Amino acid sequence: MSVPAGESLRLIRAGVDTYQEPVVYLRADSAVCRSEGFEAQARVIVETGGRSLVCTLNVVTDGGWLGSGVAALSEAAWRRLRPRTDDLATFRHAEAAESASRIRAKVYGQSLTHIEYEAIMRDAIAGRLSDIELAAFLAACVAQQLEDPEVTALTQAMVHVGTTLTWHSSVVLDKHCVGGLPGNRTTPIVVAIVAACGQLIPKTSSRAITSPAGTADAMATLAPVELDLAAMRRVVEREGGCIVWGGSVGLSPADDVLIRVERPLDFDSNAQLIASVLSKKIAAGSTHVLLDMPVGPTAKIRSFEAARTLGKSMSAVGTALGIKVGLHLSDGTQPVGGAIGPALEARSVLAVLGRETHAPRDLRERALDLAGAVLELDGARPGEGRARAVQVLDSGLAEQKFEAICEAQGGMRTPPVARHRAPVVAAASGTVRTIDNRVLGRIAKLAGAPADPAAGLELHVRLGDRVERGMPLMTVHAETSGELAYALSYQRHHTSAIDVEP
Amino acid sequence: MSVPAGESLRLIRAGVDTYQEPVVYLRADSAVCRSEGFEAQARVIVETGGRSLVCTLNVVTDGGWLGSGVAALSEAAWRRLRPRTDDLATFRHAEAAESASRIRAKVYGQSLTHIEYEAIMRDAIAGRLSDIELAAFLAACVAQQLEDPEVTALTQAMVHVGTTLTWHSSVVLDKHCVGGLPGNRTTPIVVAIVAACGQLIPKTSSRAITSPAGTADAMATLAPVELDLAAMRRVVEREGGCIVWGGSVGLSPADDVLIRVERPLDFDSNAQLIASVLSKKIAAGSTHVLLDMPVGPTAKIRSFEAARTLGKSMSAVGTALGIKVGLHLSDGTQPVGGAIGPALEARSVLAVLGRETHAPRDLRERALDLAGAVLELDGARPGEGRARAVQVLDSGLAEQKFEAICEAQGGMRTPPVARHRAPVVAAASGTVRTIDNRVLGRIAKLAGAPADPAAGLELHVRLGDRVERGMPLMTVHAETSGELAYALSYQRHHTSAIDVEP
Repeated sequence: MSVPAGESLRLIRAGVDTYQEPVVYLRADSAVCRSEGFEAQARVIVETGGRSLVCTLNVVTDGGWLGSGVAALSEAAWRRLRPRTDDLATFRHAEAAESASRIRAKVYGQSLTHIEYEAIMRDAIAGRLSDIELAAFLAACVAQQLEDPEVTALTQAMVHVGTTLTWHSSVVLDKHCVGGLPGNRTTPIVVAIVAACGQLIPKTSSRAITSPAGTADAMATLAPVELDLAAMRRVVEREGGCIVWGGSVGLSPADDVLIRVERPLDFDSNAQLIASVLSKKIAAGSTHVLLDMPVGPTAKIRSFEAARTLGKSMSAVGTALGIKVGLHLSDGTQPVGGAIGPALEARSVLAVLGRETHAPRDLRERALDLAGAVLELDGARPGEGRARAVQVLDSGLAEQKFEAICEAQGGMRTPPVARHRAPVVAAASGTVRTIDNRVLGRIAKLAGAPADPAAGLELHVRLGDRVERGMPLMTVHAETSGELAYALSYQRHHTSAIDVEP
Repeated sequence: MSVPAGESLRLIRAGVDTYQEPVVYLRADSAVCRSEGFEAQARVIVETGGRSLVCTLNVVTDGGWLGSGVAALSEAAWRRLRPRTDDLATFRHAEAAESASRIRAKVYGQSLTHIEYEAIMRDAIAGRLSDIELAAFLAACVAQQLEDPEVTALTQAMVHVGTTLTWHSSVVLDKHCVGGLPGNRTTPIVVAIVAACGQLIPKTSSRAITSPAGTADAMATLAPVELDLAAMRRVVEREGGCIVWGGSVGLSPADDVLIRVERPLDFDSNAQLIASVLSKKIAAGSTHVLLDMPVGPTAKIRSFEAARTLGKSMSAVGTALGIKVGLHLSDGTQPVGGAIGPALEARSVLAVLGRETHAPRDLRERALDLAGAVLELDGARPGEGRARAVQVLDSGLAEQKFEAICEAQGGMRTPPVARHRAPVVAAASGTVRTIDNRVLGRIAKLAGAPADPAAGLELHVRLGDRVERGMPLMTVHAETSGELAYALSYQRHHTSAIDVEP
């Protein structure tokens, strides 16, 4: 049911960033606003130049910035509709998406087939479902604790609505870490080692959302990471591996939409985690995936029992979808590596690959463990994979492979160095008893990370270290003196970042 | 955990209506935007003049309409913060609301106590929960099919976080209709009859959201309805009854927030319906409530079985909270009364109260049934209530009481008459087989209802009527010729509004 069209308005850019939500700004006296009520999340279809997009309606009541005969688009809407200057557009109220009834069915407790999940995923990526509809869908899935067959159906649906890569190899490896630890930047090292061993490992990584650095942010200080699918394919075919930003290749667009809504809800659901991870891996063409699960009291996974439950379901869903999942437990009790922030973490990676004497040992050991386990996914005897990993790392082959991957991605770069830095020293002598990862992350962000890639902090101590009064606990890096002062001021009010007890 | 404050910006009005969502527009180079990531539904606390409000952040990247040193507020944010011109404000990121963990507990399947529900409701009305958090909460409640004791806890929490009225009478009556039929404007008549019988009936009603008229819209053409609590109390103490807009008295603010999110989700949940209805009635101080349930294939309640299930739970929760719920089943197979639109419906009400010969019989009979049932809630014998209702209506006492209530609410008015009208005639002879309430509602809205109170339509036929080619089926009323043309054009493309079969 649609209202008579009849009103064409010129489109302008509102210059407002609403994150990923497309918003259309219409005057209160426009036909759409007059003929229809205005409700929370009112949805309007904007059509121009043969393209159409569902936008959230915001009504301009006053302020003069929107002239008569004009409608404005938020940045997200502008990017997706790509109107030319002075293009005319028509507007009509969007009816409820067809799959909304499937979401209600899920809320009412029905099991859905992969066809039904696919309808929801298609509407989700087309923007036909509002954030509150997606939130209701996610809450219902969590509330009903989907069993493995339904997780399989959901994962399959997420894969189907996106692109799937195929490779000329029967074995395609990958790894995924559940709940990252600060600074735990093993991925570039693992990819270099595995690719240096002649295996395929087409890795996509994420940028930071709430953390001071994601793998893609750190990697971006070493090489371009915003490759499209064709470029990613060329890199992997030439070098066996890559480390690119998942957002630019868009391998699981449904997952991107779900994660956007799920993150602020902070749900802890194995089903969503499994569907998210496996949909991306299957789309990347992987056949064997290592699941790294750091276990610790403040890590995402808090007990071995929880790790076993997750691992069992992940394996079962993987098997149903033709992908082998290997499980790896690791220590999640404290940060790994001594740096937080894109460029600082990248330097740790280079130090390990370059076998430098000051390279963080914990990062090296963890990367070797993981690379070994990845290599053993395809049937090698236990220990054999790790031995090969040590060999290619110590021989410099991994370093060469990493440089080759960087070149293939568009050219290797030197990570930037921050213009300002300041140490934080121990106020008293004692032993480092606790380290608060959240506070450390906040300090790094106030210093400017990840927007300023050089910003962040270096940790000089680990749990259990003995420190003397006046010894540096960390060094804060920032591009401006204002941000440095910000970060240090925050640190002074949150000394729990590194707790030293007498 | 908060970031260092330190940035004060001048507040201006953005002139953007985002419905009830408070939005703050900050420049991309502001401290809050720089020190924090930007996420879907990022929440910022705006503080000015001792008041603070959680707003959704929209980032102004361009466009020049927001100067340096300035932040803009959406209409909803402006109304709630009430800054004076050139007031300065500070900004910081809002941490997750404490009750968000209770929402997650609900999603994970835990039962919540009324204390926990109260925490969620308090955060909801304070704006500390985002719409997606509220959507997740609602979905979880529906998914878990709350049992009566938990519905009781939720209802109690909703009452506790708002104001509750008390009256100097042990019996306070009310009525609620589940799922309105178009034109079914019985409430003003029922209130007049019940109050004329000397009973208390403090009625609050809603405005239209998606329909062409709510009871408050129709009543607003006859008297002021935007009374505050003190004024409502004065009217009821003087005349025994009132018909005011619920939005202005704000008796169940938690319900107002939940309904805003729930409506676009279109959940069909007895638990939410019961909590919504009873929280408002208890807050209004009612002791006896009649629940009118129209049953029909296209009504909200489709079977007697469904009506019985709802009625049983409503009664149980009512009893637990000390309020008696009476149940009333009515015919939900077709519209009631012959008018759609605020002023046209008001005229039908006046015709019934004034015993005019052309008054719609179905509206009169239904109002008498309901008023009788309301009067019988307090122990009168079956039939006695209806007999008294007929008596006060036919004697003119109900009409006098209605006029007195209108005067007490601020003065009786004459409903406006639309400047333009046009008949829609039968294209062929035959019998009226179906009437599509949704299409009729859309025609009335395109004609301008409810924004133009005089707009709407009069129906000249009912199901089963025999019509001849060229006979008028309905008359469309509009304030402008453009809107009249809009409505008629829509009608021509949707002749299913009134389906005449040979």
